Amino acid sequence: MSSSTHPSIQTLELGEQWFFEKDPATFPGQIFGLQVARVLHHTKSPFQDILVFESTDYGNVLVLNGIIQCTERDEFAYQELISHTPLMAHSNPKNVLIIGGGDCGVAREVGKHIETLESVTMVEIDALVIELAKKYFPNMTTFVEHPKFDLIIDDGFKFLKETTKKYDVIITDSSDPEGPAVEFFREGYFNLLSNALADDGIVIMQSSENIWLNLPYIKSLNVTAKKVFPNVLFSQCYMPSYTGGQLGLLIASKNAKLDLKRPQRIFDSETEMKLFKYYSSEIHEASFVLPTWAKNVLS
Amino acid sequence: MSSSTHPSIQTLELGEQWFFEKDPATFPGQIFGLQVARVLHHTKSPFQDILVFESTDYGNVLVLNGIIQCTERDEFAYQELISHTPLMAHSNPKNVLIIGGGDCGVAREVGKHIETLESVTMVEIDALVIELAKKYFPNMTTFVEHPKFDLIIDDGFKFLKETTKKYDVIITDSSDPEGPAVEFFREGYFNLLSNALADDGIVIMQSSENIWLNLPYIKSLNVTAKKVFPNVLFSQCYMPSYTGGQLGLLIASKNAKLDLKRPQRIFDSETEMKLFKYYSSEIHEASFVLPTWAKNVLS
Repeated sequence: MSSSTHPSIQTLELGEQWFFEKDPATFPGQIFGLQVARVLHHTKSPFQDILVFESTDYGNVLVLNGIIQCTERDEFAYQELISHTPLMAHSNPKNVLIIGGGDCGVAREVGKHIETLESVTMVEIDALVIELAKKYFPNMTTFVEHPKFDLIIDDGFKFLKETTKKYDVIITDSSDPEGPAVEFFREGYFNLLSNALADDGIVIMQSSENIWLNLPYIKSLNVTAKKVFPNVLFSQCYMPSYTGGQLGLLIASKNAKLDLKRPQRIFDSETEMKLFKYYSSEIHEASFVLPTWAKNVLS
Repeated sequence: MSSSTHPSIQTLELGEQWFFEKDPATFPGQIFGLQVARVLHHTKSPFQDILVFESTDYGNVLVLNGIIQCTERDEFAYQELISHTPLMAHSNPKNVLIIGGGDCGVAREVGKHIETLESVTMVEIDALVIELAKKYFPNMTTFVEHPKFDLIIDDGFKFLKETTKKYDVIITDSSDPEGPAVEFFREGYFNLLSNALADDGIVIMQSSENIWLNLPYIKSLNVTAKKVFPNVLFSQCYMPSYTGGQLGLLIASKNAKLDLKRPQRIFDSETEMKLFKYYSSEIHEASFVLPTWAKNVLS
């Protein structure tokens, strides 16, 4: 087996090039592979290893530190669920903050609500990811030139420590907790989120895990979040290119009585079909329904 | 790269042995891999290629014709959903027929209702799969010695053509539609099911696909089923070891007014926790909620 231009890309029989997502530390014993048509970009930025390749069947693929972040074929599922769940669970969001989100897919989804929003701020540490998204994922960066969109290239922690603004929705679309991103999953980060959140605000973050891969970790993340927020729930997005075909989201609010499982605003079915490919009010509610064993552990 | 005892098992760096689920015809450009601790069995039976291996992290794994059928780690999800969905959508099932189901996991789940059932009949063509399940998946074969369980080693089509009994629930737990199993996915099979089904009965089958992999195929399967049954719905099971992390189920009834999405009988939460690891009345309903684009195509 020969190594190609990236350590995660290997040549199988017939000269096929495959990208293998493999991480013995966090999901031992399993691999997800996508066939590579050609490598489009590979750099080590000051923050992370960045790979973009054209796959044979999933469109262009963005990989950070060896983990698939998005493929053109299924990215809409995650971007829609992490964006519209808090926006629709809120009765009247005005100011939205995105921490991370360099591929700009979350910004695109938040942009679908722009007529009723006042501002959308995105704080991404790695400008190169945004540049690559513009070049290789043009369908994800459609909102970045909007006058209500404010892009800040900076450390999300630093921004949260310094901001005095209160946000109605804060979406953390980070990479997984290896290296610097580990801080996104600790109590200190939840405190920073709480400080920047309006009293009736909602935060959501990708958990980096799903119930099948590491339920004890998700349990501990929930416990950590509950030290800061009285109202914490866990939902899941189901899409083929994430490890094990699913990724968990943690959602929380300061208001203990807010029913995060139910959209506060519901579009009619026709509008849903125009705006969304994955999200709907039914998907919103169903994404919180966990298998019995996972529900028991997390409740 | 060296080939091991099975063409789907390959040696990667460090001498690791990996099973690769790869099928360019039905899911091109993607691979799911499980690390192999040791191969337990490999035969070509008269019906199919059978591989059983011990994996490093998913327990024992059964593979038919190169496709993962079950792993000890996550098999309960599929077995529970395909069994309890029709049994709980039925108000009073008495006689249950399983077509296929050689690993005996569906029988185990149907057996959880045995106090209220009169008979459970399973018709499996390949006796060797049952023998291997008893040996390598003992937690799946716990129901096979029950006096109300009737095991018939025969062709499911032949059995359906000849039986005069009417069943309340018929579960088709077949392998995928390659080779002989292709007939399970055609109109003739739905007619046979209809003939063997009581007027208020329910049939369910695994679709061999999910919405991400081949939605046009699922659409055509739905259209075929609707030629025979007035009431046809599609649900999904989410578990890591199936291709893309999900597998679709087709469910149908002769009664056009039966609401298959809602359990007719609901256990209390404590009983659910005792009986099930995956299924619950909430999971029952949520499994029918499809992402907007898939819902549009199928409706």
